[in-house]
Amino acid sequence: MEKYKKQLEYSYTFGVFPTIELIKNKKSQLKNVLLSSKFIPSAETDVYFKQLKPEVLITNDKLINKLADKENVFVMGVFDKYPCDKQLLGNHVVLVNPSDMGNLGTIMRTMLGFNITNLVLIKPCADYFNPKVVRASMGSIFSLNVTTFNSFEEYVDAYPKITKYLFMLDGENTLGNFNHIGSDFALVFGNESCGLPDTIKPYGKSVVIKHSKNIDSLNLPMSVGISLYEFTKNNPFN
Amino acid sequence: MEKYKKQLEYSYTFGVFPTIELIKNKKSQLKNVLLSSKFIPSAETDVYFKQLKPEVLITNDKLINKLADKENVFVMGVFDKYPCDKQLLGNHVVLVNPSDMGNLGTIMRTMLGFNITNLVLIKPCADYFNPKVVRASMGSIFSLNVTTFNSFEEYVDAYPKITKYLFMLDGENTLGNFNHIGSDFALVFGNESCGLPDTIKPYGKSVVIKHSKNIDSLNLPMSVGISLYEFTKNNPFN
Repeated sequence: MEKYKKQLEYSYTFGVFPTIELIKNKKSQLKNVLLSSKFIPSAETDVYFKQLKPEVLITNDKLINKLADKENVFVMGVFDKYPCDKQLLGNHVVLVNPSDMGNLGTIMRTMLGFNITNLVLIKPCADYFNPKVVRASMGSIFSLNVTTFNSFEEYVDAYPKITKYLFMLDGENTLGNFNHIGSDFALVFGNESCGLPDTIKPYGKSVVIKHSKNIDSLNLPMSVGISLYEFTKNNPFN
Repeated sequence: MEKYKKQLEYSYTFGVFPTIELIKNKKSQLKNVLLSSKFIPSAETDVYFKQLKPEVLITNDKLINKLADKENVFVMGVFDKYPCDKQLLGNHVVLVNPSDMGNLGTIMRTMLGFNITNLVLIKPCADYFNPKVVRASMGSIFSLNVTTFNSFEEYVDAYPKITKYLFMLDGENTLGNFNHIGSDFALVFGNESCGLPDTIKPYGKSVVIKHSKNIDSLNLPMSVGISLYEFTKNNPFN
């Protein structure tokens, strides 16, 4: 095992919380759980770690220190990356060229919070299996279907029927002033610095989140979160 | 000038954007603008830097390298910290014991986006003049009134009449299902890990942002941003 880089076919979870999310939701991909000699089991970790084959659990301080960027990692998971090969049934969030890994993780966590579990990334985009994304997602990534397309047009070809809402500063519709009609929706957001290109306007309905002129724009996770809130506010969330 | 620490009576902006916000909104507090020899003026920087006294502008690579945490800082501002000594007229955001500096800056930027300019922090709280907060706020801090109180009770004594909405996971009112009636409101949020204590419930109306059970909670800036959106959605934002 080596320090994470994009080319590896496996990645890492750092910390108890995302490692438990990995075991709960993607156990088939789990290779190992690495423990520090300082790790103290709890009732919760017992529930998950005791269901693993003994050889999966490895106590090795040196290895953890080599792999972890930060100090005080007592638990980490090692998992094989996996493709998303299913049709994305239901609603989507589509991010065109997202570049910030922390933002990507925050968006994943927020999506799971609003029960939207399909995330489409249009390349080029941040490496979504990078441990920084996994950490920022607090393990939510293991409950989502994440997939990539080479271009927005390729995505449109794959999902021609879903209603696409394109979030743009000059959107023609104001979030909160219209109701989504129909079955499924895709909420589409552009890159952190440059937003969505005008060329994709024909593919959907453009939407603006009204804000004051004192800021250039809301940040990307905030725009996604506010939109998810508005689009799901009549859901029961049982 | 020395590397930032809380005890200093001055602080720093790193980068062109927050430094211009500093000049635009808190020029009286500006001490210096430090430039790297690699800095290339633009039409926009000319507008702001040419209005400064020549002795305020200092080109000094060594000093910037000493003060800046990160590389590639070509412009930074030095400013005297300042108190907020005015009455907070209008709506408030109140953060009880916020601990994360990035969160604090993100919240500031989002507040300015929704034209809520009064931020109350209940101690203990993150150092809001730390350059990390200033950076995350993208300079929005210079357009806000930020003040601290030693306890929530002290805040209530100072602002007894403002309607206080207390955001809690077990809130009795669902965001989006009620209308704010009256003049001003205060949106109150707890610490990142532990939320608001039950003991403050008598001081306001408790509110929950409904989300799925797949996550423990939305993150703090997201909760604040969604609430600001909901409370200001009928505003024109001219």
